Amino acid sequence: MKEVVLGIDIGGTFTKFGIVDREGNCLEENFTNTNTYFEFDAYLENLHSEIEELKAHIQEDIELKGIGIGAPNGNYYRGTIEHAPNLNWKGEISVTESFKKYFPDVPVVLTNDANAAALGEMIYGGAKNMKDFIVITLGTGLGSGIVVNGQLVYGHDGFAGELGHVNVKLRGRQCGCGGRGCLETYASATGLKRTIFRLMADTITDSELRNFSFNELTAKMISEAARKGDAIAQEAFEFTGRILGSKLADAVAHTSPEAIFLLGGLAQAKDLIMEPTIKSMEESLLPIFRNKVKVQLSALQDTNAAVLGASALAWKELED
Amino acid sequence: MKEVVLGIDIGGTFTKFGIVDREGNCLEENFTNTNTYFEFDAYLENLHSEIEELKAHIQEDIELKGIGIGAPNGNYYRGTIEHAPNLNWKGEISVTESFKKYFPDVPVVLTNDANAAALGEMIYGGAKNMKDFIVITLGTGLGSGIVVNGQLVYGHDGFAGELGHVNVKLRGRQCGCGGRGCLETYASATGLKRTIFRLMADTITDSELRNFSFNELTAKMISEAARKGDAIAQEAFEFTGRILGSKLADAVAHTSPEAIFLLGGLAQAKDLIMEPTIKSMEESLLPIFRNKVKVQLSALQDTNAAVLGASALAWKELED
Repeated sequence: MKEVVLGIDIGGTFTKFGIVDREGNCLEENFTNTNTYFEFDAYLENLHSEIEELKAHIQEDIELKGIGIGAPNGNYYRGTIEHAPNLNWKGEISVTESFKKYFPDVPVVLTNDANAAALGEMIYGGAKNMKDFIVITLGTGLGSGIVVNGQLVYGHDGFAGELGHVNVKLRGRQCGCGGRGCLETYASATGLKRTIFRLMADTITDSELRNFSFNELTAKMISEAARKGDAIAQEAFEFTGRILGSKLADAVAHTSPEAIFLLGGLAQAKDLIMEPTIKSMEESLLPIFRNKVKVQLSALQDTNAAVLGASALAWKELED
Repeated sequence: MKEVVLGIDIGGTFTKFGIVDREGNCLEENFTNTNTYFEFDAYLENLHSEIEELKAHIQEDIELKGIGIGAPNGNYYRGTIEHAPNLNWKGEISVTESFKKYFPDVPVVLTNDANAAALGEMIYGGAKNMKDFIVITLGTGLGSGIVVNGQLVYGHDGFAGELGHVNVKLRGRQCGCGGRGCLETYASATGLKRTIFRLMADTITDSELRNFSFNELTAKMISEAARKGDAIAQEAFEFTGRILGSKLADAVAHTSPEAIFLLGGLAQAKDLIMEPTIKSMEESLLPIFRNKVKVQLSALQDTNAAVLGASALAWKELED
């Protein structure tokens, strides 16, 4: 009988889920819709039947030991998703309680998606032997999971690690949170696009990116343009890295991590984003921190990191 | 036989030390010079004889159980003071090792002064029942001690909690650390003085503070002027609070503390600094954090907080 957990990543568009063993092997995985369900109960009913179907595919005898869920604005202490701007379900959703109706016999734990990614890095990834590190997810927004002394930092209310909303600039870019100048409006796949559009507005520099609408443009397209020598694309990466690096230096001043791992759509640009970020971080660091902090791509970058992270949360809960 | 510890606070000018029982009562305390000694060994020889003299004053039978030391750039893991800009002893000083020569039979632990203050707050002060909080010392510079899940955050190298050096402004005010625009160049007793001088340069507003040199001016004088209606002094507090509050919001985004305690010369201005700080912090916070974080004066503000903090470090070490 093989012991497994279920890792679930609830994203704005899709929900990914997989059956994962203790070594981090994903035996089966699949995905289903999130944003087509306007009621959480209907969503969960569908997800449950999809999960049962997935389990039926597995040939070996498995024993489900627990369920880990990563979700935007997920609260570990309360098992809730609270006021997530990019989900249809408004207010507070009692996620773990609802899951319990379908899976009454196993522990169900939830945290925010970036915290799950940090646990994935710790248990299966590049942070295996680290006690102090930070994971930054650079996707539509910027998420972060902070680990101190081998433990995820949840804070007194379960919402610690919101580096996407530290302030870059007073009266800066408008943010989905209602504020202005938040880090994620600059340093994320969307932030990079916004910088491209700002540069196209401010300069007359020619660029192949001038042929695409805001909604068409992706971080991948910008990255490809930069590699072909597009000056606007290159400048956008420089600008983004400069801002991200300076705020990573601030994060180091808080918890002095051994490493910072970058993950997600913008991180896929690799050296294009890593180099200016590291340069700017080192320039901004207090001398005692310089040349000590490794900034690197997540070791789970090319895997289903979100599902692995959610399953790591479940395994960690079983251990603790 | 009463069990006691020795709490020592090594400051740039003076070293304060006291004999403290488990309940936080300081049985005896005194101070001696720091900056008149250019060699650490000569300093320690003098301090040791002062300590023996202090012990001799105590009537009851005492048993010394441990020694806790707070010092600028103190490294908990290594027991060293490393490259402290405001001390005469350059490079790395093996403090706990040297103390062991005089006190071979008890544990000697060291951390930075703001971390010691945070432990003092946790054991004797306003954070007695808290697991997640931050202490900010607003003196010549800005120091910070961050507590997560009931434990001080040391980080992988022992230097976590350097909020005095998060960046406020690119190419901002010159800082003693070699950088520019660090928080402590704005939000500290010295930062407040710098703001007064900037306002006297930029405006023609009349102010009684125009009669004092930079070296004469103190945070206390600025606070008294503000209470008497001095417009420049009042504006300086507003400006300082605005910057401090915005960076406290960033700190909340990192570790989501239940409370933030302010301590030190600038905190003595009470409402003059607290009100603009809290207002600015609340405006800058992500909505999920608003109206949750208590910002208050340290409960040890009017005691010898530094000595109590250092003794709390010693008691905590004995427990752990």
